[in-house]
Amino acid sequence: MSAAQETERVWAALDGFHIEVPSWGFANTGTRFGKFVQGGAATTIEEKFADAAEVNKLTGASPTVALHVLWDLPGGKADVPVIQALEKKHGVKSGSINPNLFQDLEYKFGSIANPSSEIRANALAHLLDSVEIGRALGSKDVSLWIADGSNYPGTQSIRKRIVWMEEVLGATHAALGEGQRMLIEYKPFEPAFYHTDIADWGMALELARRAGPKAKVLVDTGHHYQGTNIEQIVAWLLHVDQLGGFHFNDRKYADDDLTLGSIDPYQLFRIFHEILNSTKEDQAGIAFMIDQSHNLKGKMEAMVQSVVTAQEIYAKTALVDRARLAELQQACRLVEAEECFRTAFWQDVRPLVREWRKSRGLPVDPLKALTESGYVEKITGERESKNAKSVSSYA
Amino acid sequence: MSAAQETERVWAALDGFHIEVPSWGFANTGTRFGKFVQGGAATTIEEKFADAAEVNKLTGASPTVALHVLWDLPGGKADVPVIQALEKKHGVKSGSINPNLFQDLEYKFGSIANPSSEIRANALAHLLDSVEIGRALGSKDVSLWIADGSNYPGTQSIRKRIVWMEEVLGATHAALGEGQRMLIEYKPFEPAFYHTDIADWGMALELARRAGPKAKVLVDTGHHYQGTNIEQIVAWLLHVDQLGGFHFNDRKYADDDLTLGSIDPYQLFRIFHEILNSTKEDQAGIAFMIDQSHNLKGKMEAMVQSVVTAQEIYAKTALVDRARLAELQQACRLVEAEECFRTAFWQDVRPLVREWRKSRGLPVDPLKALTESGYVEKITGERESKNAKSVSSYA
Amino acid sequence: MSAAQETERVWAALDGFHIEVPSWGFANTGTRFGKFVQGGAATTIEEKFADAAEVNKLTGASPTVALHVLWDLPGGKADVPVIQALEKKHGVKSGSINPNLFQDLEYKFGSIANPSSEIRANALAHLLDSVEIGRALGSKDVSLWIADGSNYPGTQSIRKRIVWMEEVLGATHAALGEGQRMLIEYKPFEPAFYHTDIADWGMALELARRAGPKAKVLVDTGHHYQGTNIEQIVAWLLHVDQLGGFHFNDRKYADDDLTLGSIDPYQLFRIFHEILNSTKEDQAGIAFMIDQSHNLKGKMEAMVQSVVTAQEIYAKTALVDRARLAELQQACRLVEAEECFRTAFWQDVRPLVREWRKSRGLPVDPLKALTESGYVEKITGERESKNAKSVSSYA
Amino acid sequence: MSAAQETERVWAALDGFHIEVPSWGFANTGTRFGKFVQGGAATTIEEKFADAAEVNKLTGASPTVALHVLWDLPGGKADVPVIQALEKKHGVKSGSINPNLFQDLEYKFGSIANPSSEIRANALAHLLDSVEIGRALGSKDVSLWIADGSNYPGTQSIRKRIVWMEEVLGATHAALGEGQRMLIEYKPFEPAFYHTDIADWGMALELARRAGPKAKVLVDTGHHYQGTNIEQIVAWLLHVDQLGGFHFNDRKYADDDLTLGSIDPYQLFRIFHEILNSTKEDQAGIAFMIDQSHNLKGKMEAMVQSVVTAQEIYAKTALVDRARLAELQQACRLVEAEECFRTAFWQDVRPLVREWRKSRGLPVDPLKALTESGYVEKITGERESKNAKSVSSYA
Repeated sequence: MSAAQETERVWAALDGFHIEVPSWGFANTGTRFGKFVQGGAATTIEEKFADAAEVNKLTGASPTVALHVLWDLPGGKADVPVIQALEKKHGVKSGSINPNLFQDLEYKFGSIANPSSEIRANALAHLLDSVEIGRALGSKDVSLWIADGSNYPGTQSIRKRIVWMEEVLGATHAALGEGQRMLIEYKPFEPAFYHTDIADWGMALELARRAGPKAKVLVDTGHHYQGTNIEQIVAWLLHVDQLGGFHFNDRKYADDDLTLGSIDPYQLFRIFHEILNSTKEDQAGIAFMIDQSHNLKGKMEAMVQSVVTAQEIYAKTALVDRARLAELQQACRLVEAEECFRTAFWQDVRPLVREWRKSRGLPVDPLKALTESGYVEKITGERESKNAKSVSSYA
Repeated sequence: MSAAQETERVWAALDGFHIEVPSWGFANTGTRFGKFVQGGAATTIEEKFADAAEVNKLTGASPTVALHVLWDLPGGKADVPVIQALEKKHGVKSGSINPNLFQDLEYKFGSIANPSSEIRANALAHLLDSVEIGRALGSKDVSLWIADGSNYPGTQSIRKRIVWMEEVLGATHAALGEGQRMLIEYKPFEPAFYHTDIADWGMALELARRAGPKAKVLVDTGHHYQGTNIEQIVAWLLHVDQLGGFHFNDRKYADDDLTLGSIDPYQLFRIFHEILNSTKEDQAGIAFMIDQSHNLKGKMEAMVQSVVTAQEIYAKTALVDRARLAELQQACRLVEAEECFRTAFWQDVRPLVREWRKSRGLPVDPLKALTESGYVEKITGERESKNAKSVSSYA
Repeated sequence: MSAAQETERVWAALDGFHIEVPSWGFANTGTRFGKFVQGGAATTIEEKFADAAEVNKLTGASPTVALHVLWDLPGGKADVPVIQALEKKHGVKSGSINPNLFQDLEYKFGSIANPSSEIRANALAHLLDSVEIGRALGSKDVSLWIADGSNYPGTQSIRKRIVWMEEVLGATHAALGEGQRMLIEYKPFEPAFYHTDIADWGMALELARRAGPKAKVLVDTGHHYQGTNIEQIVAWLLHVDQLGGFHFNDRKYADDDLTLGSIDPYQLFRIFHEILNSTKEDQAGIAFMIDQSHNLKGKMEAMVQSVVTAQEIYAKTALVDRARLAELQQACRLVEAEECFRTAFWQDVRPLVREWRKSRGLPVDPLKALTESGYVEKITGERESKNAKSVSSYA
Repeated sequence: MSAAQETERVWAALDGFHIEVPSWGFANTGTRFGKFVQGGAATTIEEKFADAAEVNKLTGASPTVALHVLWDLPGGKADVPVIQALEKKHGVKSGSINPNLFQDLEYKFGSIANPSSEIRANALAHLLDSVEIGRALGSKDVSLWIADGSNYPGTQSIRKRIVWMEEVLGATHAALGEGQRMLIEYKPFEPAFYHTDIADWGMALELARRAGPKAKVLVDTGHHYQGTNIEQIVAWLLHVDQLGGFHFNDRKYADDDLTLGSIDPYQLFRIFHEILNSTKEDQAGIAFMIDQSHNLKGKMEAMVQSVVTAQEIYAKTALVDRARLAELQQACRLVEAEECFRTAFWQDVRPLVREWRKSRGLPVDPLKALTESGYVEKITGERESKNAKSVSSYA
């Protein structure tokens, strides 16, 4: 590939690459053992919008922010005008709407899969509210992460709970408006330990199909068993036209919610390849979102770092010579195919990405620009007193 | 539950419990590092039938033997009369028919997912032969384990291979006769290491549905990632009416093919519970098969031990008070539900099983009866010279 | 074995079996996603002693309660008289002393392995306080769970941190009095995700030896990689005379802290076998402790259930015919050895355990006795208002 | 870092980088399901030497070849002159000596941990032969991979087997000559499934220490549980001065023996960093060896590819600014430290490596040079008839 072709490919890829940032990625989070509070963490939806706008200003790639209904719109639909004002003020839009069905005490034994029809009705009501909020905000996706499950064998009927979920998800689907979708996430364990009602992509796919055509599957890269080939699941979901989007993060063992590409960057490259190797139509329907919990790294730093890493690895993937690769794969010329594939991974795309940033009027080095902007110091000064001390789930 | 009720439940369960034994379970097998040859191992299909008949005589639970086309019917359809004569002679019937698409050198880069249309055609031809053999033998199931996959990222197109598999499986399904089924097995890895084309139950389910109504999913209990909740997959397959059957074995880490119930007997109890907790119609379509590779234990001993263990754990499961359990689950009385469930697991059912054996004219202690019969000594004497020395895949 | 011999073995085993309960097992806990608060959860050290005493009254097996310095003795040494008064009042003694080096904000980047010598000094001071508290209470063990580690490659020097740990642990060891021990726990991940400074038994063993002869290794059954053979680690620690004790719990995937024996009871049986198969001297130095986090089950129910399960599986293990087993193992008679081993697992020991309870003046069915006592209702009434609502690490 | 500094660092690193190739990497291997035979695979020790010499000619990095006693010196010591003649003829030297204690039928229940003292004596005799062969060949290391273990709980005494291993390893150590070492490898499972006698680095370390000062631990990168932090184990072994060397390969799930760096190249970078970050003395004692089983890729292609990948990733590692990294780690400036670390990983070192190759008179592109040399065609022509068809452990 000539240098000009490389530039063209990378620039085209970056122009088309957007990745949503989560509002909760700017707030304090932690593990069950404790929450290490940061002075600059966002504590209000206004602060989260400000932070998201700053990330977008630095990277040019994150024009939307995912909202969490319970934490960001505690007043429900009534808070929509507040959000709309923030969108206008900060120049970033609302992205996916994330209901919360795991925190309230009544969901102890499940939400949409709870044996109690009353509790399931409450869960449905929250989902319908979320759909309405999404419609009012012009947001495309309602993203459902259902934490339901059980901790001990024999304590719940796995099969009955499937039926209950189908009912609630069907009713939620029926409320979706024109242009709205619901994305169903899966996760093998945590916070439920013995069985999680939507444990893998097969279960999410069944539920999505049963719910209706506007339901798709959401892949969180951290929600798989050890050794799972995630890019293969991506290929299958593309094949059956059910890939709704991603929650990107990385992990070493469980659902660690580490910054994207930090543990296994080659895996991210392979996932991106399945996407770029698919048709434009396939690609159009895929939402890219970050879902991370930076409990040690600085919130703003970590978010900028993640977006930059995503851009760089996406740029690498764009450099795969897919026509040549297809020939080598067809001929089963294994070593040549592998080398053709990973030569793009080994290429240092950072100079090309810098050029693109410059041409688009963006800072050449977003992390450095963040430091130099003094933004973190500023918000720390403003927010420090609002951020309390470490809290453990134990004490 | 009264003692009489317990007896009734256990006897009814055992009367209805059959588990197929695999012909290859009587032959020498090993690991890639070597094959530890046993003097009494079966080397011919005649010997395998004799051994299977002996297991059935001792346990009363294994009236059918799974056949492996390549090893047991090397002449293909032409060998059907040989098999029929053996059925008549030994009083056990042919069970599932197992094609082999992994051993021939041409399948190095895949069989039904091979980029070469010629090789795929050969694979299809073997599948169609297997279907015909099944029909000729009056066997219900053709069991497909597809070992296809790739070892390195980028060396094959995961997506194109899905399409190729769909074509071959569709054509195979079209050839199935009245009363015939095809069972599609899944496995996450080995012998392919980077990606296996049918890696999990979701992929097997998609392929089965696409193939047609006579295609179902086959669950091998050793073919899952660490930590997978297998009984939940069973519940889902029952829910969508796609559970074709089981290959039972146990494992500690990978696909170890150890004797059933030897590592985690409680898991087997939970799997059986999902089955016994389903309707009679659900249960009617489920084939139970053993698929083990006893490379250290004596072949005959291990097979009898596995069948006996299956019977005993099935009997335990039959003792679960399912009505009471359903109430406790509905009320989310967790500890009581768990205790209700596992009190059946803790019950020592061996006296009840012995009574049943006696009443059915079977040996009270099948393992002891095997020893006392002198069968192993007899076959060792007859076969020893035919069983060569250890062979490694390396040397 | 005759019935009389069985009774003798089981009774002797149960008479010698004690398992410590953790004070935090009576308090509210949860996951990072939320804490489901129970009305009857203990909120004060007084309440924890009361609950522990009740468990001991019902089971006869838990005469000591593990204390957590930060939560139970917030005043440090000054709180020793409070504890002593509670011991006297409730008739249960203080067990192991558990320092806390993970919750304070200054431990964000580590405690005893923190690059800051000042922070390491603070950690050491807390450890020395814990040693003094242990001495003052006449408690044998200080149990160290060190949560230190890092989340991202390259962010910390793994090697330097080893040296820092050695220094602090050495200084702690030097302060141990006559009859005191320090137990060093290991854990592969969580809350650190990329590297945990004491990740496995090999690291714990190295640190224990370097610290000195009063340091031993503590095995938490939930702190292993998937597929690990825990009983083998137990055998090795016994072999090198470094097994200090256990934190018992069960898990399906990660460190789920489920009630003991709930997921894989056969594994617990195998662990107990390694212990009962060792010498009396070996056994004398092993502390049995429960470390669980019952965030869905009722606190009191779950704790009684765990102690009872431990007793029952320990009783099963006592029934292994170890002399016969050794012969069969020596002769490599695999199937017979396995059947000899697990016949004890299959035996229903509950009648024998009930007889023992009766003979010792204990309730025959501890869980039922708990229900009938009205204890849970009583404490719920007393404590309900003190137990706040669900708290998430996110919101 | 200036360009000149980068060149200097990379060239110095490459000049010092040697990685041993295994004789069995040129021969046919497979999985238990079959062996896909290659026409050009080596079938004699002469052919293996020729192939190894070719790899060294192309890469300049593999001057030694690991020998497998059973396969390469079937005559034992008597074959030493044959090997010496081959060394002279081909210009590559014998590297580590690898005994085989897993293939012979008598090792079915173990070799150095077998309950039979007679079989243990035979195993010791083979080890002593291997030591003598090593001495005669002037080879430094005898590499012990002990496949011993058991498949089922209760069938063997884990503890007694520890003692037996200690005895045999001690006797082997006693026979080591001046300058000889024994390296003890560990592996969690396969071919033993329930328990492997030397399962992890902790066990290998204990045995090495007990054997004596010339015994060290050998790390095979594929021999770990999922999620294990291998670079941390490397750091610990360096810390305790017990790191003898590596068997490099990559894997996705189990011990897949894939080509090095093919699945997780960032992990290899992290492992190399622990080494380059240690002292010259530490580094001097570390043997780098490839241990792979290319059952789909062409043997010669795969070996050259592995050596080249090792060189390139080692070169990347050499570019880490270790002084700066240490400062950032000390200051807990996480994001900066991580970026400092991985900027070296992202750098495309291939131009620098090409320059080094040219300067050393080596082919600029070893894989291309292999193709252009016609070597594979030549050996295929010579060897094809000697390479039989696929063989399965089943049939």
